[in-house]
Amino acid sequence: MSEEQVLRHVVLLQFKEGTSEEEIREIEEVFLALKGKFEEIQAFEWGTDVSVEGLSQGYTHCYLLTFASEADRDAYLPHPDHVALADLVTPHVEKVVVVDYWRRL
Amino acid sequence: MSEEQVLRHVVLLQFKEGTSEEEIREIEEVFLALKGKFEEIQAFEWGTDVSVEGLSQGYTHCYLLTFASEADRDAYLPHPDHVALADLVTPHVEKVVVVDYWRRL
Repeated sequence: MSEEQVLRHVVLLQFKEGTSEEEIREIEEVFLALKGKFEEIQAFEWGTDVSVEGLSQGYTHCYLLTFASEADRDAYLPHPDHVALADLVTPHVEKVVVVDYWRRL
Repeated sequence: MSEEQVLRHVVLLQFKEGTSEEEIREIEEVFLALKGKFEEIQAFEWGTDVSVEGLSQGYTHCYLLTFASEADRDAYLPHPDHVALADLVTPHVEKVVVVDYWRRL
């Protein structure tokens, strides 16, 4: 299976100062709920920064989604459920970076 | 296996303008060679940005390393082979972000 095409979708977030733990938890839950809603999402994982090199640039949350194709990603991005998540997150976001890549081993 | 502890190490790079394709390829090759040198590295993958949301913030390269423990990561970071890679990359780096996280599903 390791030779299959895998498109990774990496999202790093830094929340604005003043964003409450409850607001962050709500965002996490909505993000998690996406996985069950989209068969296009092959895999979903996330976590919070525990790096020790001092290079996190303030980013605290990482979400890693996996798609089988650009078509699957392109179905996900404009979907109302994803847009609703983006609308929920955006007011609380200080910084965001999104990088997609085809996995090379 | 999905319940095992997995520590992800995400590195995003933007190279300085003027970095040649050959220099970038050399860096990629040294990065790839690390995998074979460290039994601490459980998995290694990488790729170049193909995102379509306009949120890549200039980052073009993503490297995703997987460790089983913080101890394994902590053995990797100061190792001379990793330091040599960092020394090779640093002069060419415009921006870098490194985020580590324990995988949550």
